Amino acid sequence: MPDDQPPPPLPPGLLDRLASLLGPRGLLTGAGDLAPYLADWRNLYQGRTPCLLRPGTVEELAEAVRLCAAAGLPLVPQGGNTSMVGGATPDESGRQLVVSLARLNRVRDIDPLDMTMTVEAGLVLKAAQEVAAEAGCLFPLSLGAEGTATVGGVLSTNAGGNTTVRYGNARELMLGLEVVLPDGRVWDGLRRLRKDNTGYALRHLFVGAEGTLGFITAAVLRLFPRPRETELGFCAVRDEAAALALFRRFRDRDEGAVRAFEYMSGTGVGFYARHIEGGSVPLPGHDHYVLVDLASSRPEAGLRALMEAVLEEALEAGEVLDATIGESEAQRAALWRIREEHPEAQKREGASVKNDVSVPVSRVPELIRRASEACRALIPGIRPVPFGHMGDGNIHMNLEQPEGMDGAAFLARSHDIMETVNAVVRDLGGSFSAEHGIGRLKTDMMEDWRGGAELDLMRRIKAAIDPQGLMNPGKVLPG
Amino acid sequence: MPDDQPPPPLPPGLLDRLASLLGPRGLLTGAGDLAPYLADWRNLYQGRTPCLLRPGTVEELAEAVRLCAAAGLPLVPQGGNTSMVGGATPDESGRQLVVSLARLNRVRDIDPLDMTMTVEAGLVLKAAQEVAAEAGCLFPLSLGAEGTATVGGVLSTNAGGNTTVRYGNARELMLGLEVVLPDGRVWDGLRRLRKDNTGYALRHLFVGAEGTLGFITAAVLRLFPRPRETELGFCAVRDEAAALALFRRFRDRDEGAVRAFEYMSGTGVGFYARHIEGGSVPLPGHDHYVLVDLASSRPEAGLRALMEAVLEEALEAGEVLDATIGESEAQRAALWRIREEHPEAQKREGASVKNDVSVPVSRVPELIRRASEACRALIPGIRPVPFGHMGDGNIHMNLEQPEGMDGAAFLARSHDIMETVNAVVRDLGGSFSAEHGIGRLKTDMMEDWRGGAELDLMRRIKAAIDPQGLMNPGKVLPG
Repeated sequence: MPDDQPPPPLPPGLLDRLASLLGPRGLLTGAGDLAPYLADWRNLYQGRTPCLLRPGTVEELAEAVRLCAAAGLPLVPQGGNTSMVGGATPDESGRQLVVSLARLNRVRDIDPLDMTMTVEAGLVLKAAQEVAAEAGCLFPLSLGAEGTATVGGVLSTNAGGNTTVRYGNARELMLGLEVVLPDGRVWDGLRRLRKDNTGYALRHLFVGAEGTLGFITAAVLRLFPRPRETELGFCAVRDEAAALALFRRFRDRDEGAVRAFEYMSGTGVGFYARHIEGGSVPLPGHDHYVLVDLASSRPEAGLRALMEAVLEEALEAGEVLDATIGESEAQRAALWRIREEHPEAQKREGASVKNDVSVPVSRVPELIRRASEACRALIPGIRPVPFGHMGDGNIHMNLEQPEGMDGAAFLARSHDIMETVNAVVRDLGGSFSAEHGIGRLKTDMMEDWRGGAELDLMRRIKAAIDPQGLMNPGKVLPG
Repeated sequence: MPDDQPPPPLPPGLLDRLASLLGPRGLLTGAGDLAPYLADWRNLYQGRTPCLLRPGTVEELAEAVRLCAAAGLPLVPQGGNTSMVGGATPDESGRQLVVSLARLNRVRDIDPLDMTMTVEAGLVLKAAQEVAAEAGCLFPLSLGAEGTATVGGVLSTNAGGNTTVRYGNARELMLGLEVVLPDGRVWDGLRRLRKDNTGYALRHLFVGAEGTLGFITAAVLRLFPRPRETELGFCAVRDEAAALALFRRFRDRDEGAVRAFEYMSGTGVGFYARHIEGGSVPLPGHDHYVLVDLASSRPEAGLRALMEAVLEEALEAGEVLDATIGESEAQRAALWRIREEHPEAQKREGASVKNDVSVPVSRVPELIRRASEACRALIPGIRPVPFGHMGDGNIHMNLEQPEGMDGAAFLARSHDIMETVNAVVRDLGGSFSAEHGIGRLKTDMMEDWRGGAELDLMRRIKAAIDPQGLMNPGKVLPG
């Protein structure tokens, strides 16, 4: 349906019933109010909606879902709307109602002895981190969008981020869930138990389902002791294989201490120096870098000695060419910025194509080399900018346009570039979406990558839990 | 159907087709051959079966499942047959075919750089540990039945064990699965990726489903660095709360080092001294004990200093009354035996009722105190023998018969005793099955504990994946 046609009318009386249920703060219909909820983070999609629901309690949400289910209206759950794959925005039909969980943002409970907290879906990730810190604990999930992304969103997408190598994805940080089901019933699975073998693991089905099976409304999250010591090393390494060898050295010496291990290409670090820092980065002129972040909650953990000893070994082995260690909080923040500003630096350099892929950890060097070569063969002058979570096997295998090429012409080749990268990923037993999920952007790839029995099982589960197909239609599963 | 009636005949020709598919090693029908597969580990049930299938390859299993599905025959997957809840034995009807995965026991791949191995379901858990050790790695799952239990079994039941506090349950140790579905299709989900957000988490659905959704035939398992240092402390503590306070002291000092933290009652340790060791245990005469097992893969981890420092603090605080540290491998093994022989010592003392329950970690002292009091009020002279995984909130809340009471008369009160314990568990937000699962023994409790939306979702999933209801009928879900 073209954008300029009016959306189909809602069933008579429904809007009134929703208004009386949710109150003036809970139902928005003005175009200006709706606008921020209709475009995705990357501006890939522009949707429409007749209204936005913002329930203030789980009971309000459940009742609203019952009303909409009875009317056969599709619903799009939305947290912080920071999806990289268009997972939280409505389509162009104007039929899908957006449901923001933002007002469900209470901290229901925190228990530093259990090392758990029970929080609602709309709580912003950064606020969740702060609540844990105030109780003397660590909630370790950390990612670029943490100031906007919500607990419900990161669970629905099984978000990863920088500390996954140590603490796992969102899934591993969750013990229990509360979910409003597609028919409006509430499943209370908010158990704060380490062990509970009583039937199917429903909580793991809702995590990563991207809102297609129901609304996660609250969760029991795991907490950890806060680090007492941290050390950050920034290293120029000989090549991709040397980067992996360095990871292995740290892991073998103190596996629990490696909080993050991030690879960056010389090209990407060069973009950062040019566009963000105005030329100044440490150890310039190398082709490969890693950032190794150590942390420990032990008193006198000796992380500085560990860092120096391992780097010295790796220097002697020729794996590390040069290295610097952050000497202050400010220096460490500056080093982390080199990694965190990679997307922004790439953007300023020109057009780029993003691939969030993973392979077995041992195959990361081969992934980077082969995907770079294949893309160079496809488009001469293309500039590979691989970076990311080497310790998890998750590389953002991004490609920057050749110098001087027209950006639009480059982006017109996006599909070819993604196919080229993915052919290598597939050959290495990898995944075409490591942490960003499927959303709307990658549903087309599901048949090819997850077809046969796997996709059939997913469709059966969807039909069993959401028989009307009203939950976030058009996401995850291909139409 | 009474046990002495002949089982219903198989469809004509099916046995011949299975025999020709599976060969003489793959199909057993003699009563003597079948006997070991028909009774469960605890001898709670005695089933019947027309034949036992022992496929030698995944393809053979898949074809056999297709044949049986076409004939509408129910199948009972069996690994090492060590279920504590009758989860792997057929019922009395004589209709259910037992399918042993024992011959699917190959190691397909091991990669110490990825820290993964891909093994088949029939591999015995202890063999899996040994394969990992030969590659210089640790597969940490460890439990009493490890010499018999299989990888497929421990995944299908999401087994826990002694090291869960450090490494998690079987679920957390699994990256990918291969499954033969109820219709005989094979789902190849053997991805060895740390991150893969491409649709619903099917692997988490099969783990813990106790064979009611399909046959796990192979798995990618996570490996860890082997410990370089271990220390074991055996401590008499003031009370249950002091035991938990001691756990917290260790966790706060070096969370990654606590490999196991086991509580034992003075009563249980007394049974061990009387029946297993003939009187000699260290630190006799106390009411509460803990075993704290520290391990680290760090060189020079300083675990002895850590152990001594924490115990000294806790002694000064009055939490620990006395303590001894294992000075040799032999001493450590002897201390662990006190814990491991608890079930055998209880058996020799008389009749006992077992409860595998969990609560939030902070509520364990309250669980032990309240459940013990409630049982004493129910049956004067009853002897509570709580022991187990305090660090996970998982206590085996066992009750020994009063001295001099008739064992059978005591066991006739089993239901009342379990109800009494479970009322406390429920009040504390706990679970009636922490690590043993549901099997056949606890299906009756599902409606009461997991009824409403949760059980409805489980039934829908079962119907979606196994529409004929042929996979391990009568287990997990109530009839």
